[in-house]
Amino acid sequence: MAASLDEKFESLESILAEHLPADVLEKVNLSLRGPGSTNLELSTKAKEMAKKNNFDLQGYQIKIAQKEETRPPRLVRIAAIQNAIQKPTTASVEEQRNAIHQRVDQMLAAAHECQVNIVCLQEAWTMPFAFCTREKYPWVEFAEPAYDGPSTKFLAERAKKYNMVIVSPILERDEEHGDVCWNTAVIISNRGNVIGITRKNHIPRVGDFNESTYYMEGNTGHKVFETDFGRIAVNICYGRHHPQNWLMYGVNGAEIVFNPSATVGALSEPLWSIEARNAAIANSYFAVGINRVGTEAFPNEFTSGDGKPAHKNFGHFYGSSYIASPDGSRTPGLSRIRDGLLVAECDLNLCRQMKDKWGFRMTQRLDLYADSFARAICPDYKMDIIKDPSSKK
Amino acid sequence: MAASLDEKFESLESILAEHLPADVLEKVNLSLRGPGSTNLELSTKAKEMAKKNNFDLQGYQIKIAQKEETRPPRLVRIAAIQNAIQKPTTASVEEQRNAIHQRVDQMLAAAHECQVNIVCLQEAWTMPFAFCTREKYPWVEFAEPAYDGPSTKFLAERAKKYNMVIVSPILERDEEHGDVCWNTAVIISNRGNVIGITRKNHIPRVGDFNESTYYMEGNTGHKVFETDFGRIAVNICYGRHHPQNWLMYGVNGAEIVFNPSATVGALSEPLWSIEARNAAIANSYFAVGINRVGTEAFPNEFTSGDGKPAHKNFGHFYGSSYIASPDGSRTPGLSRIRDGLLVAECDLNLCRQMKDKWGFRMTQRLDLYADSFARAICPDYKMDIIKDPSSKK
Repeated sequence: MAASLDEKFESLESILAEHLPADVLEKVNLSLRGPGSTNLELSTKAKEMAKKNNFDLQGYQIKIAQKEETRPPRLVRIAAIQNAIQKPTTASVEEQRNAIHQRVDQMLAAAHECQVNIVCLQEAWTMPFAFCTREKYPWVEFAEPAYDGPSTKFLAERAKKYNMVIVSPILERDEEHGDVCWNTAVIISNRGNVIGITRKNHIPRVGDFNESTYYMEGNTGHKVFETDFGRIAVNICYGRHHPQNWLMYGVNGAEIVFNPSATVGALSEPLWSIEARNAAIANSYFAVGINRVGTEAFPNEFTSGDGKPAHKNFGHFYGSSYIASPDGSRTPGLSRIRDGLLVAECDLNLCRQMKDKWGFRMTQRLDLYADSFARAICPDYKMDIIKDPSSKK
Repeated sequence: MAASLDEKFESLESILAEHLPADVLEKVNLSLRGPGSTNLELSTKAKEMAKKNNFDLQGYQIKIAQKEETRPPRLVRIAAIQNAIQKPTTASVEEQRNAIHQRVDQMLAAAHECQVNIVCLQEAWTMPFAFCTREKYPWVEFAEPAYDGPSTKFLAERAKKYNMVIVSPILERDEEHGDVCWNTAVIISNRGNVIGITRKNHIPRVGDFNESTYYMEGNTGHKVFETDFGRIAVNICYGRHHPQNWLMYGVNGAEIVFNPSATVGALSEPLWSIEARNAAIANSYFAVGINRVGTEAFPNEFTSGDGKPAHKNFGHFYGSSYIASPDGSRTPGLSRIRDGLLVAECDLNLCRQMKDKWGFRMTQRLDLYADSFARAICPDYKMDIIKDPSSKK
């Protein structure tokens, strides 16, 4: 069996739909995704925009929560945008960034047509994921101040125009603190102001992901942002591998946690469908995994720490953005190979209802783990291992 | 769409194999399970035993680790046994237990033929999962002392005979501490002695799972047992919903964590394939999910806290036991409806190799979470929520 899927594999969902009879497909989908999602009819105009501009557009209604006596439903439409870079990495920084702005602008307009309330873009959406190169210039020139950089200004204008909260994950230049860079998400309100920022808490040292060369572990903790449409948080990329990171966003009251990412097939595809969904389950919130698409080539060759020859391509970013629900079900994924906009309508009341049903927060025993973690980090910690008294080993 | 799969649905794997052309099936399986498992040829005798005694038998070789210069491979065969109860719940306690012993004995013999080194049975394997009833008698009479109860004696004899570590999850009667009950796994070495016990850390209060009526949260922490064939731990049933529980077994050095369970379709099936696999990924160890099969009916009617009429059936325990690898791939699942034995050969060296590759332990920031959890449990904790200054809400 091949080690990873190739770029011709559009999506698991499309290949199953092509080959399975309708009654079988229904059961298989139920087995794969749970009972939570049905198709959401999107506006004709949005569909025309998607066709004209060649991006994948999918809409789902996520299992609507049961009716409560004392709280009205809290229906919101959340969305994810995934895209490839638009210009070669040899183009100027400004040219590359502007082209991506224009591309994302098309999808933001479609999101507005789909009555989206909150949308999140992919990690470092304004630039190629150049950290594979370990070169600083020109790549760090994509970094911008969080509160008034060109991408924040660009999105703030759209956020206000469309009455839409926009989460903008960028490479941040922190001029107030020695010009360091951070991997940061900027939370822009539906009135166009920046509500705040949150930084990537866990930084990879894996293969081509040399990000620790560029920025450190985030220092913003696990902030949750209260927007007009619900409490949101952002777990950036590699942080999805750390369940304790997802957990703390839940502790701080998040109802929707976005996971803007950039990850490639041979490395992480078997993990992708699992991690955000597990977080939605364990923390009784909605989780949104977003991954870029396409293959990015760089001007100078680089090695990947795997003994293989130097090369110029990063590998295939496989898209497959999806939304998982606190009841454990999930939407289908966007395309593995095309830009896309994923829209889901959900009732945030489902979060508390799932907390009440499953009781995970009640049974979480954080006191036990606060103590266990505190002991485990001591230099003289001894693992709690019981040896077999009968063993001669 | 129906809310849950019915009992005619044998398994996702069998239905896909039935309907998809070979080349498509290969890609779909790669997408669903990752590249990690290939078929393992099992002994003819074991296959004959499975056929004669009508249980599902499946064997896989899990991606063998790369060759290291300074450590030899550590190949072990691990196994899971899932089964239905064998007698009506109206039969005597001893009759019910003995019938299950006999059934499991058939599968243990087959496991021996498959050269299994470590096998784990399902949660409370000696009894029906009677906690739905909230009745104490006769159900608590299935409880037995961990070190010398009838089921421990029965398994200790087989463990020695077969040179096989057996993990035996039972309802424990703790005579030394006021006759209380616990939900406990007994770790029996391949020489037939009890290495130790470990108890269920998180107790559900969900639907028919009235377990908190019978026993409290476990007081054994996150022990890991050093056996002749590797370091193992046991995360019992509902503990799989808590990633911080899985995490602490990893901190204590587990290479294989078993998750013996009893869970039913309409409640948890969308979660089942996610949680143990996520744990294997996040903690760089092998994780084994084991679930009982069949529908259990009880003599007296009970209600399920869902407003529906009283009834006597628990619902469908959907089996589907599987093994997940630290590289994120997984084996197919056993049948949803038949008893079964799942065997996998793995190289425990893969655990450290995945730690080195992904670096999750290095980047875990347990210091941050020890502090965050300690603060979060304070009665006056305020969630870290950033409000939108422009909001009039």
